[in-house]
Amino acid sequence: MDTDVLAARLRALVGDAAVITDRQRLRTYECDGLAQYRVVPAVVVLAATTADVAAVVRECAAQRVPFVARGSGTGLSGGALPHADGVLVVMSTMRRILEVDRDNQRAVVEPGVINLQLSRATLPDGYYYAPDPSSQQVCSIGGNVAENSGGAHCLKYGFTSNHVTGLELVTPTGEVEQIGGKAPDAPGYDLLGALVGSEGTLGVVTSVTVRLTRSPADVRTLLAAFPGTDQAGAAVSAIIGAGVIPAAIEMMDALAIEAAEAAVQCGYPEGAGAVLIVEIDGPASDVQKVFEEVEGHCHEHGAFEIRIAADDAERALFWKGRKSAFAAVGRISPDYIVQDGVIPRTALPEVLSSIARLSAESGVRVANVFHAGDGNLHPLVLFDDSVEGESERAEEVSGAILDLCIQHGGSITGEHGVGSDKARYMPRMFTDDDLDTMQLVRCAFDPASISNPGKVFPTPRLCGERPGRHQGAHPLADAGVAEVF
Amino acid sequence: MDTDVLAARLRALVGDAAVITDRQRLRTYECDGLAQYRVVPAVVVLAATTADVAAVVRECAAQRVPFVARGSGTGLSGGALPHADGVLVVMSTMRRILEVDRDNQRAVVEPGVINLQLSRATLPDGYYYAPDPSSQQVCSIGGNVAENSGGAHCLKYGFTSNHVTGLELVTPTGEVEQIGGKAPDAPGYDLLGALVGSEGTLGVVTSVTVRLTRSPADVRTLLAAFPGTDQAGAAVSAIIGAGVIPAAIEMMDALAIEAAEAAVQCGYPEGAGAVLIVEIDGPASDVQKVFEEVEGHCHEHGAFEIRIAADDAERALFWKGRKSAFAAVGRISPDYIVQDGVIPRTALPEVLSSIARLSAESGVRVANVFHAGDGNLHPLVLFDDSVEGESERAEEVSGAILDLCIQHGGSITGEHGVGSDKARYMPRMFTDDDLDTMQLVRCAFDPASISNPGKVFPTPRLCGERPGRHQGAHPLADAGVAEVF
Repeated sequence: MDTDVLAARLRALVGDAAVITDRQRLRTYECDGLAQYRVVPAVVVLAATTADVAAVVRECAAQRVPFVARGSGTGLSGGALPHADGVLVVMSTMRRILEVDRDNQRAVVEPGVINLQLSRATLPDGYYYAPDPSSQQVCSIGGNVAENSGGAHCLKYGFTSNHVTGLELVTPTGEVEQIGGKAPDAPGYDLLGALVGSEGTLGVVTSVTVRLTRSPADVRTLLAAFPGTDQAGAAVSAIIGAGVIPAAIEMMDALAIEAAEAAVQCGYPEGAGAVLIVEIDGPASDVQKVFEEVEGHCHEHGAFEIRIAADDAERALFWKGRKSAFAAVGRISPDYIVQDGVIPRTALPEVLSSIARLSAESGVRVANVFHAGDGNLHPLVLFDDSVEGESERAEEVSGAILDLCIQHGGSITGEHGVGSDKARYMPRMFTDDDLDTMQLVRCAFDPASISNPGKVFPTPRLCGERPGRHQGAHPLADAGVAEVF
Repeated sequence: MDTDVLAARLRALVGDAAVITDRQRLRTYECDGLAQYRVVPAVVVLAATTADVAAVVRECAAQRVPFVARGSGTGLSGGALPHADGVLVVMSTMRRILEVDRDNQRAVVEPGVINLQLSRATLPDGYYYAPDPSSQQVCSIGGNVAENSGGAHCLKYGFTSNHVTGLELVTPTGEVEQIGGKAPDAPGYDLLGALVGSEGTLGVVTSVTVRLTRSPADVRTLLAAFPGTDQAGAAVSAIIGAGVIPAAIEMMDALAIEAAEAAVQCGYPEGAGAVLIVEIDGPASDVQKVFEEVEGHCHEHGAFEIRIAADDAERALFWKGRKSAFAAVGRISPDYIVQDGVIPRTALPEVLSSIARLSAESGVRVANVFHAGDGNLHPLVLFDDSVEGESERAEEVSGAILDLCIQHGGSITGEHGVGSDKARYMPRMFTDDDLDTMQLVRCAFDPASISNPGKVFPTPRLCGERPGRHQGAHPLADAGVAEVF
């Protein structure tokens, strides 16, 4: 469809000011946090209400125009990458906290609400929103829902999907649905699970009901320095094996520590081959006891220095190194890939050795930062794009790390999502039958494949392409139209 | 299809001994725990392996014969009610614990494994399987997955869906799929949420990977007697409002207490209008402190007697009254309906008053037993079937209670499922659009509507009946064949 005609129709639906077609302004939206992919959208709409979103999606459905929803644009897998012939629906303009229901421990928010803002709003009542991506100061709840975002404290508290109890969804055909609510269970299919983490491929979320978590009475944090990742990994296994569930256990290896020091001078112990940050929260009496137990496990597995945060300032300093690690890598390498993979926790030592071997053999440096308790790795693969062949080699090592994760029964993404970036890796993890089953759901919601097309799935198929499975033909298939998105 | 021909084909696939067609033996399977509905299946197959199940389902798909999977048959909503022209696939014969992976806190089990057996098998290692339906001595994990079963301790530990991380599924077209695994997250749609609680309408689960929970260091239990449910309800609100999350808070009203006393002589305090059982578990130091806090809240809200279990025997006695409450009602009434509904916890006092009013106006006695912390009501509606009109009046009151739950933002079932029994209530809770959205998923997995047809959904539609939504036609629709199941 002609862009001018489309823009004019959208202006009639949502008002002139909400529709952007100026090329310079459109470029603001050409990428998300994964800047290596850039596409300028045909039109941008700044959504103000659910009715706006529904009207825009209905228009897209009628004209078979693809659309992509975008929150704060902090995603690391290109999940909010625009479509060149499509509409980018900006949701960060819907940012009201609609309700804080303290008695039922729920909040209802628009998707553009910033993650940390919600916790700030509920802290005076003694509650907070538990999932805490490192980007929580800027990322939005809607984006967290799309990617099923995790964070350092998800070991104890669970991922976004464990904290969402209801959604308002505009389906790809433009209908407004309520899925779930405040009550803990509902009959019928529990589609919340399928929707959280569906990366915008099943519609646009316009309101989110989340669980609020009681602020812990006490929090204690330690930083333990080890000779290497083997010893640190053994300490993690010992802590978890003893039945302790820390609020967080984070590990950084020597190269990641070097980068963090260069960037934010976090003052981690010198000579550490690995550090662990372990945080325990809960009732004060319990925290003290468990904390001593954790210290014991660290000593027993070779920690040569253990620092205990004396106050909030020191605790913040421990975390500063960890939370700035991704960006800090820029200090020691001109370019890098932030990888994201998951392994069963018990496979940590073996996978870390294999990564070290991959790195040695290829000459590509890899810094490791990860949510050790969850087995969620974030290898940072370093390279210099100005040197011929380096980016290709880095890409190879990066892919080989994902293969390692799969071989050990893990996953190609823990919390960053598949998006544009990892769709090609999906067949390494899933069989054709597995992917077909996912496609059944995609086609059920989005028969025309207009909701964030080209993301998640490696080879977009026309819905109804395998009549043996779908038992029905897609009208486009009858018309002989090929997949265009 | 002719039953003899079907049976012969099935015998060729799974062996003679596994196929039952003898009328007398078939009658064993005519109902589940909801005995008011009875249907004798055409054929019963005793499944021994995943390959058996896949072969049977493929045969059913080829012949368009409906099938129903059944575990221990303890369900309370008629979810395993057979189809008169269909195959009942008995899964209780697949009852091996395939793996206990202590280091990753996971177990892999066949669906016929009894809930409590799994905990017994893992207790020596210090772990157990947390979801604990009252029927846990006899119900199977596969049935728990179908119904997303809860239990008294789900307030703190969550429902079945919070403890399942992987499934092996035979889809209604006979394909074997792995959904999820041991790792905590996977890319693509998270279909675990949609599958757990789908009541057998999306296929047959043949293996379940579950999370194991560390046994708590300490458990303390109190029984508090109140003048009435208002005071007990206020105590519940105060406890939860203070940020305490007990392992369980169960409430019984005067009539439920009377029934339990008549049946099992549990010796609850005399003159109680309501009792609360509150259980606190966790590290010993914490349990003691929180327990005192809970006692304080009970006293403050009018508890006139508080007993603290001195040992496991006394603790078991407290629970005996509660856990036998459903069956005990048979002592004070010849017939009764076990209702199951959910409300936001804050609506408890209002809904209880309304139930009392309904009961007074209709002359139908209602005993209340419930998971108070979750707002999960189990009203027991008493009647005498031999008295003309009583069962109809009881049915009316029972339905009116569900309406109350819906009006207060709750749900028509907390943990027993929709099954055969509540399909007709679904339109009171969901709009046509909501139900159509669920149907999209149903049709994606089961285009021929052969997997447990007639359950959950009020008016089974032919898949593809609304071309505006589904964008495709169902072959049966083209052939002019009506919905037959």
